[in-house]
Amino acid sequence: MNLRDEQLEIYRDFLKIPSISAKKMGIEEAASFLKDLLEDRGIGSQVMKTSGHPVVYGEHNIGADRTLLIYNHYDVQPVDPENEWEMDPFSAKVRDGRIYARGSSDNKGTLIARIFGVEEAIRNKELNVNLKFLYEGEEEIGSPNLHEYVTGNKELLKADSVIMEGSQLGDGGRPVVTLGVKGLLYVELKEETGGTDLHSSNAAIAPNPVWNLIAALNSIYDGKRVLIPGFYDDIRPITGKEDSILSEYPFNEDEMKKLFALKAFRYSGSEKLVRELFTSPTCNIDGIISGYNGEGTKTVTPRRASAKLDFRLVPDQDPSKIYGNLKRHLKEKGHNVEIKEFGLEFPVRTDPGSALAKAMIASAEQTYGKKPVIMINSPGTQPMAIFTRELGIGEGVSAIGAGDHNSRAHAPNESVSVENFYRAMDHARNFLKVFR
Amino acid sequence: MNLRDEQLEIYRDFLKIPSISAKKMGIEEAASFLKDLLEDRGIGSQVMKTSGHPVVYGEHNIGADRTLLIYNHYDVQPVDPENEWEMDPFSAKVRDGRIYARGSSDNKGTLIARIFGVEEAIRNKELNVNLKFLYEGEEEIGSPNLHEYVTGNKELLKADSVIMEGSQLGDGGRPVVTLGVKGLLYVELKEETGGTDLHSSNAAIAPNPVWNLIAALNSIYDGKRVLIPGFYDDIRPITGKEDSILSEYPFNEDEMKKLFALKAFRYSGSEKLVRELFTSPTCNIDGIISGYNGEGTKTVTPRRASAKLDFRLVPDQDPSKIYGNLKRHLKEKGHNVEIKEFGLEFPVRTDPGSALAKAMIASAEQTYGKKPVIMINSPGTQPMAIFTRELGIGEGVSAIGAGDHNSRAHAPNESVSVENFYRAMDHARNFLKVFR
Repeated sequence: MNLRDEQLEIYRDFLKIPSISAKKMGIEEAASFLKDLLEDRGIGSQVMKTSGHPVVYGEHNIGADRTLLIYNHYDVQPVDPENEWEMDPFSAKVRDGRIYARGSSDNKGTLIARIFGVEEAIRNKELNVNLKFLYEGEEEIGSPNLHEYVTGNKELLKADSVIMEGSQLGDGGRPVVTLGVKGLLYVELKEETGGTDLHSSNAAIAPNPVWNLIAALNSIYDGKRVLIPGFYDDIRPITGKEDSILSEYPFNEDEMKKLFALKAFRYSGSEKLVRELFTSPTCNIDGIISGYNGEGTKTVTPRRASAKLDFRLVPDQDPSKIYGNLKRHLKEKGHNVEIKEFGLEFPVRTDPGSALAKAMIASAEQTYGKKPVIMINSPGTQPMAIFTRELGIGEGVSAIGAGDHNSRAHAPNESVSVENFYRAMDHARNFLKVFR
Repeated sequence: MNLRDEQLEIYRDFLKIPSISAKKMGIEEAASFLKDLLEDRGIGSQVMKTSGHPVVYGEHNIGADRTLLIYNHYDVQPVDPENEWEMDPFSAKVRDGRIYARGSSDNKGTLIARIFGVEEAIRNKELNVNLKFLYEGEEEIGSPNLHEYVTGNKELLKADSVIMEGSQLGDGGRPVVTLGVKGLLYVELKEETGGTDLHSSNAAIAPNPVWNLIAALNSIYDGKRVLIPGFYDDIRPITGKEDSILSEYPFNEDEMKKLFALKAFRYSGSEKLVRELFTSPTCNIDGIISGYNGEGTKTVTPRRASAKLDFRLVPDQDPSKIYGNLKRHLKEKGHNVEIKEFGLEFPVRTDPGSALAKAMIASAEQTYGKKPVIMINSPGTQPMAIFTRELGIGEGVSAIGAGDHNSRAHAPNESVSVENFYRAMDHARNFLKVFR
C-alpha cells in the first residue's frame, strides 16, 4: 500500500467511529483515535477532560515567534432521517471516487487531511510557526463546554492566529477562504397545557398547545423579519472591501437550486441571494412536534408541543443579549412557553488584509490553480469567537477543507471526493510553507 | 362462574383484540368475534365486505311495525403515547373495579353491554320493536366507507329509529342522553420545499416549510375564530327547548379541570364553557411534525412539514362545503400546501320531544335512579348523519354507555368501571321494555 492509500484508510477508520455528540456515542473512541494519530506523528498530545465531551489537545513547538492554533471537531451530526441514506452512514463506503459517511465532510475529512499536511511539512522542514491543535467533541451540539475549556486553559492555548474547521470547495472546484462566521442562538420552546392528551371534542373549551406555540412563534418572526426588539440594532455595516468581496462571490441560482433539490429560493436574483446569505441574520425552525403524526387519523387535543429554533447572527449581534430580549419579549406578549437555550455563539469577521488571510488566499490559489472564493464570513457557525474574544487572537480564518457542494453536510448521504481529500492535505502543507 | 362473570369475561376477551383501524390491526378477528357472539344468542348475523374494513350486520325480527337500528363500532384508537400506559393496552387488566384497555370505553364496553341487554330482553319476551345491528370497523378513522355501505344497503338497513354508540355517565353517575352529534372535517396539510433537508446556514435563502405551514395555519384560524369564508354562515340557532337543556347541563369547572389535568380552560365560567362545548365549532390541531425533534440539537432546515387538523361542526354546517371553501381559501391566500381530506361527517340534532328521545330519557332515569343529563348534541362526532340523511331515519340518539368521566377515551389508561358495564346492560334492557 502506498502512503496516500494508507492515509485514506486511516481517514476511513476514523469515519467508522459513530461519534454523534447529540447521542453521546463513540466519543471516547474518537478522542483516543486522534490522540494516537498525533502521537504516532511525533506531535505531543493529550485527551483533556471538560465538563462535557473531552478535548484532544496537541502541540508542536519549533521555537518560532508565532503560534498557529488549528481547531477542528471530531463529533458529527445525527444521521436521521436514516432511511434516506443509501448506505450505512458509518461504513465509509467508497463509490465512484467519493467516500460516504456521516462526518466525512463535516469535518473529519478536513481534520485528518490537515494532520497529514502537517506531517509532510514537518518531515520536509517547511514549518515557520509553532502549532497547537484543539479538537473538540461538542461542536454539533453548540459547543456548550468549549468556552469553559478555553478560558480555563488560556496559557496552554496562547496563539497568534487560528484556523477553524475549514470550508468546502466552491463552484468549479475553487478553494474557499472564509474570513469569519455567523453567530448562533439555538433555543427550544415548549408549551404544555395539561397532564394528558384529550379527545379533540374538548377543543372547544381546552387550549391547544400547538396553537399557543404557533402564536409564540408568530410573535418572534413574521416570515420575513425577526420581531424581537432590538434584534437588528447592533448589525455592523459591511466595509468597502467586504462589499467588493460579496460582489465577486460566484452564485449560480439554477445550479444551487438543483444541488439543494429546492423548489424555489426565498428571493430571486443572485445578487440578492448572496447578500442575504452572508449579511442577513436568520430565524430557522429546526423541528416542531406535537400530537399524533402517524398513519391515518387520531382526533386528539395534545397536551404539549415543542419547537427548536436557531438564529444565525451577523457581526456585531450579541446572542446573549438577543436571548434575553427574546425571553422578555415572549413574556411581554403573554406567551407562557417554556424556553431553553441550547447554544450561544458570537459572530466574527476578520480583516481581509491580515497576514493569515493573505497566506491562506495565496496558498489556496497555488494548490488548486484557481482564484479562491472569499467569504466575508461563513453563512454557518463555528466557535471562532471563543478564540478571538477569549484568547485575544487577532486573526481567524476558516479554510483548507475536504468537502464540496455535493457533500451534503448535516443531510443524508454526506460524502467527500477522494481527490479533494488529498488536495486538502496539499493545501495544508502549502499554507504552512508560506505562513509566518 | 355466574352469568355476570361470564359476560365480563366475554367483554375482556373482546378487549384483548387490538382492533386499531388506523393501523389495520385485529380487524378480521374482531368482526368474526362479534358475528359469533350474535349467532350464539340466536341473532342472525353476517360479516359484510365493504371497500374498507368489514361491517358486522345482525337482525332480530319479531314482526313489529317499527324497527330500531343499533349502531356501534368495533375499532379503537391507536395507543400512543404507549409509554404513558400503566399496563398493556390490550391486556384488559381489572384493577380496583375498573377494566383497563384501549377501546374499553370507546366503545367496546357499550357494544357488548347492549348485546347482553338485548339477550335478556329477548329471553324475557320484553321486546316491542324489530332490531337491526350495524357494527363498523372504521369509526376511529372517520368512517370512510360507511356512507357507501349504507347507501348500498338501504333496504336491508331500513329502520325508524337509530341509537348510536352511546354516551358516558355524567357527573354523580347520572346517565347521559345525547340528542345529536357534532360534524367533523379532518384534513392533513403538507408543505414540501425541497428534496432534502438542508444545513440551517441556508435558512437565509431557502424557505422553511414550517414557517410556510404556520402561515397557512394562521390563515385558517386566528386562535379564536375560523377564518375560512362562510364558515359560520349555516349555523342553526338553538331553540328555546334546547336552550333550557343547555342551562340545565351540569358542568363543574374545577372538577373538569382536575379530571382533564388541565392548567386552564380557554374561557372562564361554567355557562360560557357549556355554550362553547355544545354550540361552537372548533379548529383543532391533532398533530404537527417537521425536522429534528430528538435529544439535543440539530441545525437543519427541514424539507417538509405536515399538520393534521379537525374541525368539529354544529348544525347545519356542511363539511363538504367547508372543505371546498378551505381549499379555495388557501389557494387564494397564496399557500401552496398540499391538502388531503380524511373524513367528513354532517352534524345532527334530534327533537327532544321525539318518541325515541322520550323512551331513552325515561329508561335512563329508571335504571340509574337519577335524572339523566341531556345534551342537545354530543361535543364529539358519530356518523349519525349517514342514517338520518341517507336512510331518512327521523330520530337518532346516542345513549346507553358503559364509560364515565374517568374513562379517558382516546388517551392513555382508558378504562370502564365493572359496575357501569353491568348498568349499561340493564339500561339497554329497560329501554327495550318501554320503547315501541
